[in-house]
Amino acid sequence: MGGNVRPVPASTDDAVIDLLGLVAYGELVAFDRLAADARLAPDLRRRATLSELAAAEIGNYRRLADWLTALGASPEEAMAPYVEALRAYHDSTEPRDWLEAVTKAYVGDAITDDFLGAIADRLDDPYRQLIREVLHDSHYAEFAAAEIRAAIDADPRVANRLSMWARRLVGEALSQAGRVAAADRGALTALIARDGVDVPGLFRRLTADHTARMTAVGLNN
Amino acid sequence: MGGNVRPVPASTDDAVIDLLGLVAYGELVAFDRLAADARLAPDLRRRATLSELAAAEIGNYRRLADWLTALGASPEEAMAPYVEALRAYHDSTEPRDWLEAVTKAYVGDAITDDFLGAIADRLDDPYRQLIREVLHDSHYAEFAAAEIRAAIDADPRVANRLSMWARRLVGEALSQAGRVAAADRGALTALIARDGVDVPGLFRRLTADHTARMTAVGLNN
Repeated sequence: MGGNVRPVPASTDDAVIDLLGLVAYGELVAFDRLAADARLAPDLRRRATLSELAAAEIGNYRRLADWLTALGASPEEAMAPYVEALRAYHDSTEPRDWLEAVTKAYVGDAITDDFLGAIADRLDDPYRQLIREVLHDSHYAEFAAAEIRAAIDADPRVANRLSMWARRLVGEALSQAGRVAAADRGALTALIARDGVDVPGLFRRLTADHTARMTAVGLNN
Repeated sequence: MGGNVRPVPASTDDAVIDLLGLVAYGELVAFDRLAADARLAPDLRRRATLSELAAAEIGNYRRLADWLTALGASPEEAMAPYVEALRAYHDSTEPRDWLEAVTKAYVGDAITDDFLGAIADRLDDPYRQLIREVLHDSHYAEFAAAEIRAAIDADPRVANRLSMWARRLVGEALSQAGRVAAADRGALTALIARDGVDVPGLFRRLTADHTARMTAVGLNN
Protein backbone atom coordinates (compact mmCIF):
# COMPACT_ATOMS: atom_id res chain seq x y z
CA MET A 1 0.00 0.00 0.00
CA GLY A 2 3.07 2.22 -0.05
CA GLY A 3 1.87 3.32 -3.47
CA ASN A 4 -0.69 5.50 -1.72
CA VAL A 5 1.99 7.77 -0.28
CA ARG A 6 2.23 10.93 -2.32
CA PRO A 7 5.11 13.44 -2.35
CA VAL A 8 5.57 15.17 1.00
CA PRO A 9 5.06 18.96 0.89
CA ALA A 10 7.67 21.14 2.54
CA SER A 11 5.12 22.70 4.90
CA THR A 12 4.62 19.56 6.99
CA ASP A 13 4.36 20.53 10.63
CA ASP A 14 3.86 18.82 13.95
CA ALA A 15 0.11 19.26 13.80
CA VAL A 16 -0.03 16.99 10.76
CA ILE A 17 1.96 14.29 12.56
CA ASP A 18 -0.31 14.60 15.59
CA LEU A 19 -3.50 14.45 13.56
CA LEU A 20 -2.30 11.46 11.52
CA GLY A 21 -1.25 9.74 14.76
CA LEU A 22 -4.66 10.38 16.30
CA VAL A 23 -6.55 9.12 13.26
CA ALA A 24 -4.22 6.10 12.87
CA TYR A 25 -4.77 5.06 16.45
CA GLY A 26 -8.49 5.64 15.99
CA GLU A 27 -8.37 3.13 13.11
CA LEU A 28 -6.55 0.52 15.20
CA VAL A 29 -9.07 0.90 17.99
CA ALA A 30 -12.03 0.88 15.60
CA PHE A 31 -10.71 -2.35 14.11
CA ASP A 32 -10.42 -3.92 17.52
CA ARG A 33 -13.89 -2.84 18.59
CA LEU A 34 -15.70 -3.78 15.36
CA ALA A 35 -13.99 -7.19 15.40
CA ALA A 36 -15.21 -7.74 18.96
CA ASP A 37 -18.70 -6.44 18.11
CA ALA A 38 -18.92 -8.92 15.22
CA ARG A 39 -19.30 -11.62 17.88
CA LEU A 40 -22.60 -10.04 18.85
CA ALA A 41 -24.01 -10.51 15.34
CA PRO A 42 -27.22 -12.56 15.22
CA ASP A 43 -26.12 -14.55 12.16
CA LEU A 44 -23.07 -15.40 10.06
CA ARG A 45 -23.95 -12.95 7.29
CA ARG A 46 -24.01 -9.96 9.62
CA ARG A 47 -20.97 -11.25 11.47
CA ALA A 48 -19.05 -11.42 8.18
CA THR A 49 -20.21 -7.93 7.18
CA LEU A 50 -19.01 -6.36 10.42
CA SER A 51 -15.74 -8.29 10.21
CA GLU A 52 -15.22 -6.90 6.71
CA LEU A 53 -15.90 -3.36 7.93
CA ALA A 54 -13.32 -3.96 10.67
CA ALA A 55 -10.77 -5.16 8.12
CA ALA A 56 -11.29 -1.95 6.11
CA GLU A 57 -10.17 0.07 9.16
CA ILE A 58 -6.86 -1.78 9.13
CA GLY A 59 -6.33 -0.91 5.48
CA ASN A 60 -6.76 2.74 6.46
CA TYR A 61 -4.41 2.28 9.41
CA ARG A 62 -1.72 0.99 7.04
CA ARG A 63 -2.09 4.02 4.76
CA LEU A 64 -1.74 6.43 7.69
CA ALA A 65 1.20 4.52 9.17
CA ASP A 66 2.95 4.54 5.78
CA TRP A 67 2.40 8.30 5.59
CA LEU A 68 3.81 8.84 9.06
CA THR A 69 6.86 6.76 8.18
CA ALA A 70 7.33 8.71 4.94
CA LEU A 71 7.20 11.93 6.97
CA GLY A 72 10.05 10.64 9.13
CA ALA A 73 7.80 9.98 12.13
CA SER A 74 7.35 6.75 14.06
CA PRO A 75 3.70 5.63 13.84
CA GLU A 76 3.95 4.19 17.37
CA GLU A 77 5.22 7.47 18.83
CA ALA A 78 2.66 9.53 16.95
CA MET A 79 -0.16 7.33 18.26
CA ALA A 80 1.06 6.96 21.84
CA PRO A 81 -0.38 10.21 23.29
CA TYR A 82 -3.90 9.19 22.32
CA VAL A 83 -3.96 5.62 23.62
CA GLU A 84 -5.47 6.38 27.02
CA ALA A 85 -8.06 8.89 25.79
CA LEU A 86 -9.49 6.55 23.16
CA ARG A 87 -9.36 3.53 25.43
CA ALA A 88 -11.41 5.41 28.02
CA TYR A 89 -14.09 6.21 25.45
CA HIS A 90 -14.45 2.61 24.28
CA ASP A 91 -14.28 1.16 27.78
CA SER A 92 -17.15 3.40 28.82
CA THR A 93 -19.27 2.58 25.76
CA GLU A 94 -18.96 -1.17 25.36
CA PRO A 95 -22.10 -2.43 23.55
CA ARG A 96 -24.07 -5.13 25.33
CA ASP A 97 -25.80 -6.43 22.21
CA TRP A 98 -25.89 -6.21 18.44
CA LEU A 99 -28.20 -3.19 18.27
CA GLU A 100 -26.06 -1.20 20.67
CA ALA A 101 -23.05 -2.13 18.54
CA VAL A 102 -24.56 -0.91 15.25
CA THR A 103 -25.95 2.21 16.95
CA LYS A 104 -22.47 2.99 18.23
CA ALA A 105 -21.11 2.54 14.70
CA TYR A 106 -23.86 4.77 13.29
CA VAL A 107 -23.91 7.54 15.90
CA GLY A 108 -20.49 7.54 17.52
CA ASP A 109 -18.33 7.07 14.47
CA ALA A 110 -20.28 9.64 12.44
CA ILE A 111 -19.82 12.40 14.99
CA THR A 112 -16.13 11.52 15.35
CA ASP A 113 -15.74 11.55 11.57
CA ASP A 114 -17.46 14.94 11.33
CA PHE A 115 -15.10 16.34 13.95
CA LEU A 116 -11.96 14.94 12.31
CA GLY A 117 -13.16 16.03 8.88
CA ALA A 118 -13.61 19.61 10.14
CA ILE A 119 -10.06 19.66 11.52
CA ALA A 120 -8.68 18.07 8.35
CA ASP A 121 -10.27 20.83 6.26
CA ARG A 122 -7.82 23.23 7.94
CA LEU A 123 -4.89 21.30 6.46
CA ASP A 124 -3.44 21.59 2.99
CA ASP A 125 -3.60 18.75 0.51
CA PRO A 126 -2.49 15.98 0.41
CA TYR A 127 -3.31 15.70 4.13
CA ARG A 128 -6.83 17.02 3.88
CA GLN A 129 -7.60 14.53 1.14
CA LEU A 130 -5.88 11.66 2.98
CA ILE A 131 -7.94 12.19 6.14
CA ARG A 132 -11.13 12.59 4.12
CA GLU A 133 -10.41 9.30 2.36
CA VAL A 134 -9.89 7.25 5.52
CA LEU A 135 -13.05 8.46 7.25
CA HIS A 136 -15.90 5.96 7.02
CA ASP A 137 -17.60 5.71 3.67
CA SER A 138 -21.36 5.83 3.30
CA HIS A 139 -21.58 2.04 2.95
CA TYR A 140 -20.70 1.77 6.62
CA ALA A 141 -23.42 4.14 7.85
CA GLU A 142 -25.99 2.64 5.49
CA PHE A 143 -25.44 -0.85 6.85
CA ALA A 144 -25.81 0.35 10.45
CA ALA A 145 -28.82 2.54 9.64
CA ALA A 146 -30.62 -0.34 7.91
CA GLU A 147 -30.08 -2.56 10.96
CA ILE A 148 -31.49 0.09 13.31
CA ARG A 149 -34.52 0.79 11.10
CA ALA A 150 -35.33 -2.91 10.74
CA ALA A 151 -35.13 -3.43 14.51
CA ILE A 152 -37.46 -0.48 15.20
CA ASP A 153 -39.88 -1.73 12.55
CA ALA A 154 -39.95 -5.12 14.22
CA ASP A 155 -40.37 -3.68 17.72
CA PRO A 156 -41.03 0.09 18.11
CA ARG A 157 -40.04 -0.01 21.80
CA VAL A 158 -36.45 -0.53 20.65
CA ALA A 159 -36.35 3.15 19.59
CA ASN A 160 -36.49 4.37 23.16
CA ARG A 161 -33.70 2.15 24.40
CA LEU A 162 -31.42 2.97 21.45
CA SER A 163 -32.17 6.70 21.71
CA MET A 164 -30.98 6.66 25.32
CA TRP A 165 -27.89 4.72 24.29
CA ALA A 166 -27.18 7.20 21.49
CA ARG A 167 -27.40 10.15 23.89
CA ARG A 168 -24.91 8.45 26.16
CA LEU A 169 -22.59 7.84 23.20
CA VAL A 170 -22.65 11.54 22.27
CA GLY A 171 -21.93 12.54 25.84
CA GLU A 172 -18.97 10.17 25.99
CA ALA A 173 -17.74 11.30 22.55
CA LEU A 174 -17.68 14.93 23.68
CA SER A 175 -15.87 13.92 26.83
CA GLN A 176 -13.45 11.99 24.60
CA ALA A 177 -12.80 15.13 22.56
CA GLY A 178 -11.81 16.85 25.79
CA ARG A 179 -9.49 13.99 26.72
CA VAL A 180 -7.88 14.03 23.27
CA ALA A 181 -7.25 17.77 23.57
CA ALA A 182 -5.66 17.18 26.99
CA ALA A 183 -3.51 14.32 25.63
CA ASP A 184 -2.35 16.28 22.61
CA ARG A 185 1.22 17.47 22.68
CA GLY A 186 0.06 20.92 21.70
CA ALA A 187 0.44 21.05 17.94
CA LEU A 188 -3.08 19.89 17.17
CA THR A 189 -4.67 22.27 19.66
CA ALA A 190 -2.44 25.04 18.29
CA LEU A 191 -3.63 24.25 14.76
CA ILE A 192 -7.25 24.67 15.79
CA ALA A 193 -6.46 27.93 17.60
CA ARG A 194 -4.13 29.29 14.91
CA ASP A 195 -6.54 28.78 12.05
CA GLY A 196 -9.33 30.39 13.99
CA VAL A 197 -11.66 27.40 14.00
CA ASP A 198 -15.03 28.62 15.22
CA VAL A 199 -15.38 26.03 17.97
CA PRO A 200 -18.92 26.94 19.09
CA GLY A 201 -20.01 27.01 15.44
CA LEU A 202 -18.35 23.66 14.80
CA PHE A 203 -20.15 22.11 17.75
CA ARG A 204 -23.48 23.54 16.60
CA ARG A 205 -22.91 21.99 13.17
CA LEU A 206 -21.88 18.62 14.64
CA THR A 207 -24.99 18.64 16.81
CA ALA A 208 -27.32 19.55 13.94
CA ASP A 209 -25.89 16.80 11.74
CA HIS A 210 -26.17 14.33 14.60
CA THR A 211 -29.83 15.25 15.15
CA ALA A 212 -30.56 14.74 11.45
CA ARG A 213 -28.94 11.31 11.54
CA MET A 214 -30.94 10.29 14.61
CA THR A 215 -34.21 11.35 12.98
CA ALA A 216 -33.32 9.53 9.76
CA VAL A 217 -33.37 6.13 11.51
CA GLY A 218 -36.27 6.80 13.89
CA LEU A 219 -34.30 7.74 17.00
CA ASN A 220 -34.96 10.87 19.04
CA ASN A 221 -32.69 13.26 20.88
CA MET B 1 -13.08 -8.93 -5.02
CA GLY B 2 -15.58 -10.59 -7.33
CA GLY B 3 -12.88 -10.39 -9.99
CA ASN B 4 -11.18 -13.34 -8.31
CA VAL B 5 -14.02 -15.69 -9.21
CA ARG B 6 -13.05 -17.75 -12.23
CA PRO B 7 -15.41 -19.74 -14.49
CA VAL B 8 -17.12 -22.57 -12.66
CA PRO B 9 -16.29 -26.06 -13.99
CA ALA B 10 -19.17 -28.43 -14.63
CA SER B 11 -17.78 -31.04 -12.25
CA THR B 12 -18.55 -29.06 -9.07
CA ASP B 13 -19.85 -31.41 -6.43
CA ASP B 14 -21.04 -31.17 -2.85
CA ALA B 15 -17.58 -31.90 -1.48
CA VAL B 16 -16.32 -28.65 -3.00
CA ILE B 17 -19.14 -26.68 -1.38
CA ASP B 18 -18.44 -28.36 1.95
CA LEU B 19 -14.70 -27.73 1.79
CA LEU B 20 -15.15 -24.09 0.77
CA GLY B 21 -17.68 -23.69 3.60
CA LEU B 22 -15.25 -25.18 6.10
CA VAL B 23 -12.35 -23.03 4.96
CA ALA B 24 -14.53 -19.89 4.78
CA TYR B 25 -15.73 -20.37 8.33
CA GLY B 26 -12.16 -21.08 9.38
CA GLU B 27 -11.22 -17.66 7.97
CA LEU B 28 -14.02 -15.90 9.85
CA VAL B 29 -12.99 -17.57 13.09
CA ALA B 30 -9.29 -16.91 12.47
CA PHE B 31 -10.11 -13.25 11.93
CA ASP B 32 -12.03 -13.10 15.19
CA ARG B 33 -9.31 -14.83 17.15
CA LEU B 34 -6.36 -12.88 15.72
CA ALA B 35 -8.22 -9.62 16.30
CA ALA B 36 -8.75 -10.60 19.95
CA ASP B 37 -5.15 -11.80 20.29
CA ALA B 38 -3.90 -8.44 19.01
CA ARG B 39 -5.01 -7.02 22.37
CA LEU B 40 -2.35 -9.16 24.02
CA ALA B 41 0.43 -7.52 21.98
CA PRO B 42 3.15 -5.89 24.11
CA ASP B 43 3.34 -2.78 21.91
CA LEU B 44 1.47 -0.88 19.20
CA ARG B 45 3.73 -2.15 16.40
CA ARG B 46 3.01 -5.80 17.15
CA ARG B 47 -0.63 -5.05 17.78
CA ALA B 48 -0.90 -3.44 14.34
CA THR B 49 0.91 -6.37 12.70
CA LEU B 50 -1.45 -8.96 14.20
CA SER B 51 -4.45 -6.77 13.31
CA GLU B 52 -3.24 -6.64 9.71
CA LEU B 53 -2.83 -10.43 9.64
CA ALA B 54 -6.40 -10.69 10.94
CA ALA B 55 -7.65 -8.37 8.20
CA ALA B 56 -6.00 -10.59 5.57
CA GLU B 57 -8.15 -13.50 6.75
CA ILE B 58 -11.25 -11.48 5.97
CA GLY B 59 -10.01 -10.81 2.44
CA ASN B 60 -9.74 -14.58 2.03
CA TYR B 61 -13.18 -15.07 3.55
CA ARG B 62 -14.64 -12.71 0.94
CA ARG B 63 -13.02 -14.66 -1.91
CA LEU B 64 -14.41 -17.94 -0.62
CA ALA B 65 -17.87 -16.50 0.01
CA ASP B 66 -17.93 -15.03 -3.53
CA TRP B 67 -17.00 -18.44 -4.91
CA LEU B 68 -19.74 -20.16 -2.93
CA THR B 69 -22.27 -17.61 -4.19
CA ALA B 70 -21.07 -18.09 -7.77
CA LEU B 71 -21.56 -21.84 -7.32
CA GLY B 72 -25.18 -21.23 -6.33
CA ALA B 73 -24.55 -22.01 -2.66
CA SER B 74 -25.32 -19.85 0.37
CA PRO B 75 -22.08 -19.08 2.24
CA GLU B 76 -24.00 -19.10 5.54
CA GLU B 77 -25.47 -22.55 4.88
CA ALA B 78 -22.16 -23.96 3.70
CA MET B 79 -20.43 -22.71 6.87
CA ALA B 80 -23.15 -23.64 9.37
CA PRO B 81 -22.20 -27.33 9.92
CA TYR B 82 -18.72 -26.35 11.09
CA VAL B 83 -19.58 -23.59 13.55
CA GLU B 84 -19.67 -25.73 16.68
CA ALA B 85 -16.59 -27.82 15.87
CA LEU B 86 -14.36 -24.79 15.27
CA ARG B 87 -15.76 -22.88 18.21
CA ALA B 88 -14.93 -25.79 20.50
CA TYR B 89 -11.32 -25.78 19.28
CA HIS B 90 -10.83 -22.09 19.88
CA ASP B 91 -12.67 -22.09 23.20
CA SER B 92 -10.36 -24.82 24.46
CA THR B 93 -7.19 -23.08 23.25
CA GLU B 94 -7.63 -19.45 24.25
CA PRO B 95 -4.15 -17.90 24.64
CA ARG B 96 -3.45 -16.30 28.00
CA ASP B 97 -0.65 -14.09 26.75
CA TRP B 98 1.12 -12.83 23.66
CA LEU B 99 3.55 -15.77 23.38
CA GLU B 100 0.76 -18.32 23.62
CA ALA B 101 -1.06 -16.36 20.91
CA VAL B 102 1.85 -16.36 18.46
CA THR B 103 2.64 -20.01 19.24
CA LYS B 104 -0.95 -20.88 18.43
CA ALA B 105 -0.64 -18.99 15.15
CA TYR B 106 2.65 -20.73 14.37
CA VAL B 107 1.79 -24.29 15.44
CA GLY B 108 -1.98 -24.59 15.24
CA ASP B 109 -2.59 -22.76 11.99
CA ALA B 110 0.28 -24.53 10.21
CA ILE B 111 -1.00 -28.00 11.02
CA THR B 112 -4.52 -26.99 10.01
CA ASP B 113 -3.19 -25.50 6.76
CA ASP B 114 -1.24 -28.69 6.02
CA PHE B 115 -4.36 -30.76 6.55
CA LEU B 116 -6.57 -28.55 4.37
CA GLY B 117 -3.87 -28.34 1.70
CA ALA B 118 -3.70 -32.15 1.53
CA ILE B 119 -7.47 -32.38 1.05
CA ALA B 120 -7.44 -29.58 -1.51
CA ASP B 121 -4.84 -31.46 -3.56
CA ARG B 122 -7.54 -34.04 -4.23
CA LEU B 123 -9.66 -31.42 -5.97
CA ASP B 124 -9.37 -30.23 -9.54
CA ASP B 125 -8.41 -26.68 -10.36
CA PRO B 126 -9.61 -23.99 -9.87
CA TYR B 127 -10.57 -25.22 -6.39
CA ARG B 128 -7.20 -26.69 -5.55
CA GLN B 129 -5.53 -23.43 -6.45
CA LEU B 130 -8.14 -21.33 -4.62
CA ILE B 131 -7.66 -23.25 -1.35
CA ARG B 132 -3.88 -23.13 -1.72
CA GLU B 133 -4.06 -19.36 -2.20
CA VAL B 134 -6.11 -18.67 0.91
CA LEU B 135 -3.95 -20.76 3.25
CA HIS B 136 -1.53 -18.64 5.30
CA ASP B 137 1.44 -17.29 3.44
CA SER B 138 4.98 -17.63 4.76
CA HIS B 139 4.98 -14.03 6.05
CA TYR B 140 2.52 -15.11 8.72
CA ALA B 141 4.62 -18.03 10.01
CA GLU B 142 7.82 -15.98 9.83
CA PHE B 143 6.39 -13.25 12.03
CA ALA B 144 5.22 -15.78 14.64
CA ALA B 145 8.49 -17.77 14.48
CA ALA B 146 10.58 -14.63 15.00
CA GLU B 147 8.52 -13.71 18.07
CA ILE B 148 8.98 -17.20 19.58
CA ARG B 149 12.73 -17.28 18.86
CA ALA B 150 13.27 -13.82 20.36
CA ALA B 151 11.36 -14.77 23.51
CA ILE B 152 13.42 -17.97 23.98
CA ASP B 153 16.64 -16.04 23.39
CA ALA B 154 15.63 -13.58 26.10
CA ASP B 155 14.60 -16.30 28.56
CA PRO B 156 15.35 -19.96 27.71
CA ARG B 157 12.84 -21.19 30.29
CA VAL B 158 10.08 -19.94 27.97
CA ALA B 159 10.83 -22.89 25.65
CA ASN B 160 9.47 -25.40 28.11
CA ARG B 161 6.22 -23.58 28.74
CA LEU B 162 5.58 -22.97 25.02
CA SER B 163 6.48 -26.57 24.12
CA MET B 164 3.82 -27.81 26.53
CA TRP B 165 1.34 -25.33 25.09
CA ALA B 166 2.19 -26.46 21.54
CA ARG B 167 1.59 -30.12 22.44
CA ARG B 168 -1.79 -29.19 23.83
CA LEU B 169 -2.61 -27.27 20.64
CA VAL B 170 -1.79 -30.30 18.50
CA GLY B 171 -3.92 -32.54 20.69
CA GLU B 172 -6.85 -30.13 20.39
CA ALA B 173 -6.30 -29.73 16.63
CA LEU B 174 -6.52 -33.50 16.12
CA SER B 175 -9.62 -33.60 18.25
CA GLN B 176 -10.97 -30.73 16.11
CA ALA B 177 -10.36 -32.77 12.95
CA GLY B 178 -12.51 -35.51 14.45
CA ARG B 179 -15.25 -33.00 15.28
CA VAL B 180 -15.15 -31.54 11.76
CA ALA B 181 -15.50 -35.04 10.29
CA ALA B 182 -18.48 -35.66 12.57
CA ALA B 183 -20.07 -32.31 11.61
CA ASP B 184 -19.57 -32.81 7.89
CA ARG B 185 -22.71 -33.57 5.91
CA GLY B 186 -20.91 -36.49 4.28
CA ALA B 187 -19.54 -35.11 1.04
CA LEU B 188 -16.17 -34.11 2.43
CA THR B 189 -15.64 -37.40 4.24
CA ALA B 190 -16.74 -39.18 1.07
CA LEU B 191 -14.20 -37.21 -0.95
CA ILE B 192 -11.40 -38.33 1.32
CA ALA B 193 -12.59 -41.94 1.19
CA ARG B 194 -13.34 -41.91 -2.55
CA ASP B 195 -9.99 -40.59 -3.61
CA GLY B 196 -8.23 -43.09 -1.43
CA VAL B 197 -6.46 -40.59 0.80
CA ASP B 198 -3.88 -42.52 2.78
CA VAL B 199 -5.03 -41.22 6.16
CA PRO B 200 -2.28 -42.86 8.29
CA GLY B 201 0.32 -41.62 5.79
CA LEU B 202 -1.18 -38.13 5.84
CA PHE B 203 -1.03 -38.02 9.63
CA ARG B 204 2.59 -39.21 9.61
CA ARG B 205 3.46 -36.40 7.19
CA LEU B 206 1.57 -33.79 9.22
CA THR B 207 3.37 -34.95 12.36
CA ALA B 208 6.81 -34.90 10.71
CA ASP B 209 6.26 -31.37 9.35
CA HIS B 210 5.01 -30.25 12.75
CA THR B 211 8.12 -31.67 14.48
CA ALA B 212 10.36 -29.85 12.01
CA ARG B 213 8.55 -26.56 12.69
CA MET B 214 8.88 -27.00 16.45
CA THR B 215 12.61 -27.67 16.17
CA ALA B 216 13.09 -24.67 13.88
CA VAL B 217 12.04 -22.24 16.63
CA GLY B 218 13.61 -24.04 19.58
CA LEU B 219 10.56 -25.91 20.87
CA ASN B 220 10.54 -29.63 21.59
CA ASN B 221 7.92 -32.32 21.16
